Amino acid sequence: MPKITEVKLDLAERSYSIHIGKSLLENALDYIPADLRDTLSDRKVFILYDKNVYPYVQVLDEALAGKAQDIKTYAVKGGEPSKSYNVFQECLDWLLENKVNRQSILIAVGGGVVGDLGGFVASVAMRGIPYIQVPTTLLSQVDSSVGGKTGINTNQGKNLVGSFYQPKAVICDIGTLGTLPERELKSGYAEVVKYGLINDLPFFEWLEENGEKVLALEEEALTHAIKTSCEAKASIVAEDEYEGGTRALLNLGHTFGHALEAAAGYDGRLLHGEGVSIGMLMAFDLSMKMGLCPQEDISRLEAHLTKCNMLTKANEIKPNLKHSAEDLLELMQGDKKMLGAKIGFILTHGIGQAFQTTDVNEEDVVKVVKNSLEGF
Amino acid sequence: MPKITEVKLDLAERSYSIHIGKSLLENALDYIPADLRDTLSDRKVFILYDKNVYPYVQVLDEALAGKAQDIKTYAVKGGEPSKSYNVFQECLDWLLENKVNRQSILIAVGGGVVGDLGGFVASVAMRGIPYIQVPTTLLSQVDSSVGGKTGINTNQGKNLVGSFYQPKAVICDIGTLGTLPERELKSGYAEVVKYGLINDLPFFEWLEENGEKVLALEEEALTHAIKTSCEAKASIVAEDEYEGGTRALLNLGHTFGHALEAAAGYDGRLLHGEGVSIGMLMAFDLSMKMGLCPQEDISRLEAHLTKCNMLTKANEIKPNLKHSAEDLLELMQGDKKMLGAKIGFILTHGIGQAFQTTDVNEEDVVKVVKNSLEGF
Repeated sequence: MPKITEVKLDLAERSYSIHIGKSLLENALDYIPADLRDTLSDRKVFILYDKNVYPYVQVLDEALAGKAQDIKTYAVKGGEPSKSYNVFQECLDWLLENKVNRQSILIAVGGGVVGDLGGFVASVAMRGIPYIQVPTTLLSQVDSSVGGKTGINTNQGKNLVGSFYQPKAVICDIGTLGTLPERELKSGYAEVVKYGLINDLPFFEWLEENGEKVLALEEEALTHAIKTSCEAKASIVAEDEYEGGTRALLNLGHTFGHALEAAAGYDGRLLHGEGVSIGMLMAFDLSMKMGLCPQEDISRLEAHLTKCNMLTKANEIKPNLKHSAEDLLELMQGDKKMLGAKIGFILTHGIGQAFQTTDVNEEDVVKVVKNSLEGF
Repeated sequence: MPKITEVKLDLAERSYSIHIGKSLLENALDYIPADLRDTLSDRKVFILYDKNVYPYVQVLDEALAGKAQDIKTYAVKGGEPSKSYNVFQECLDWLLENKVNRQSILIAVGGGVVGDLGGFVASVAMRGIPYIQVPTTLLSQVDSSVGGKTGINTNQGKNLVGSFYQPKAVICDIGTLGTLPERELKSGYAEVVKYGLINDLPFFEWLEENGEKVLALEEEALTHAIKTSCEAKASIVAEDEYEGGTRALLNLGHTFGHALEAAAGYDGRLLHGEGVSIGMLMAFDLSMKMGLCPQEDISRLEAHLTKCNMLTKANEIKPNLKHSAEDLLELMQGDKKMLGAKIGFILTHGIGQAFQTTDVNEEDVVKVVKNSLEGF
């Protein structure tokens, strides 16, 4: 019997469990909450998936066959372009043409793109149907599948349209990471590192020791890293579901990262976690410029990211961005983390000591961005 | 000082007030909740409105000018076609291009269409921004502006895509009804009658006495009708915000009415309340066929609707629908009130005694629809 780890997200009547382990999909029924499982024969199941993960959909389909009233599947392409109004509408058409009703369950199988898209679709179909996340990338297992943020991208930026909508369960089958491209794995690892940086120096120290084992998918290290990440996120989300305060800490590196992603035009040359990796260092650099964070902590972070072959500077994005530092500042100002007229930043007093502020000098931001674009 | 009536909708942290009276828009600041009003100078206000009600937008704009950080306005056409994916996206583009942020407030001014559309847009812009409803039709004042149901229509039917999202306040300025076409007024009155039919025989009796005064916009009668309707709706919504049970009673006449509206193709020949008016009689007729409701109550309802010059039978829709009773049944089966495979109906034991059931014989439904289509 494989070891299964369970992390609970405590949100009153919207509480749910995140299940982490090997071979969970074969036994998917065990991880569907009892109230849904016990009535599954009266429910239609709609599986929305990234076409790259079809083999896992087959496993899931087999586990549910004969148990649900009906099972329908629909594939979307992986990648940010699927988080669009068009694909959103296609998914809703698929549900509605198959006579979805409020008892139906949507299961989203794939990375953050399918999870964000599927969660948004589930939140607005019939004004909300139950959904279950089956994240198949490290990034989505440690971040986007937990906490109920859903959304799509628009011409104006990333995730500007969406909802807060919690899944009924998250099933993290770590076996699905075996087929994940290495670049995607490292993209997810950036978010793992982020949890150490926010408020958990011991976890960062553990990653310094064990990060390479995580990236080598050694079961014990991998499970520990995912569990710790999910617990960190669950704890922050439970405190601040709708991002009124603390939850913004999860955006460490993201104000910069999102601007880099927007500049790259979501064309595949910069993965989300790569932007976060570069963005976290920018946040540390800005904190240092403002006299908040010791140089030693930046060096330590940069050393760890470099050891793990992660991106650290914007000039490593290939082909290079054509944007100036000022262009990127403009992109940040359109970002949804704005508080009134000011951009919200997550800065730091050092590893494990992040905090939120809008009290930032734009000239310092431009300098930091310029350094990263030039590789300093 | 005009008399202002306040109805409270009790939904824990999502509670809000419905303000009913004359000349409220001139003093709109007084009806914006204190937490928003006190910080208005830091907030952008986005006014989404039905182009037919521009004069009221000017009044509102004047009341808020200089108080908010900025005020932007955007007009959409009235009518169901505006509840579309396209207009939904246009509204979001308008917000995002004007750098909406989570502190921004959306105010929807118009009838149910603008309210449903605006509420949905507000619920997904930046994953949710505060919004305020300013309903300017009787229908929206007594029904759609209260309770947080938002949505748009799709090829598959009405309101199949949307969210549950509560406004921060509802401002019912009854002065806005003075310019409402009579047909629209009667459409709203159908929903007023509905509250009597659901669970309030004394209110129905009051309407039998005073309905014509309400339709003549006599202030006292009108205010009483709106207040009683909002209280009835608020009470049901407070008990069942997400339509798990009791709230479905508000759909009395709607399963039939929505099918009629879908058959009419939302082309303007059948207003929502007209469909409800015909649909309520169908629901009573079906209840009688099933031996649940006395003939006397149907006659009484029909007499009241006729006295008020309301539609009572589907053959009064001009030009006539080309649909058969079976076509309409098929349209009902696609309706979102389906419970699993069965259609949910609101039936009745008589005026003021509605209840929900799925235990309905399809042949009886077809007979009832056929009668209405043929004017019996």
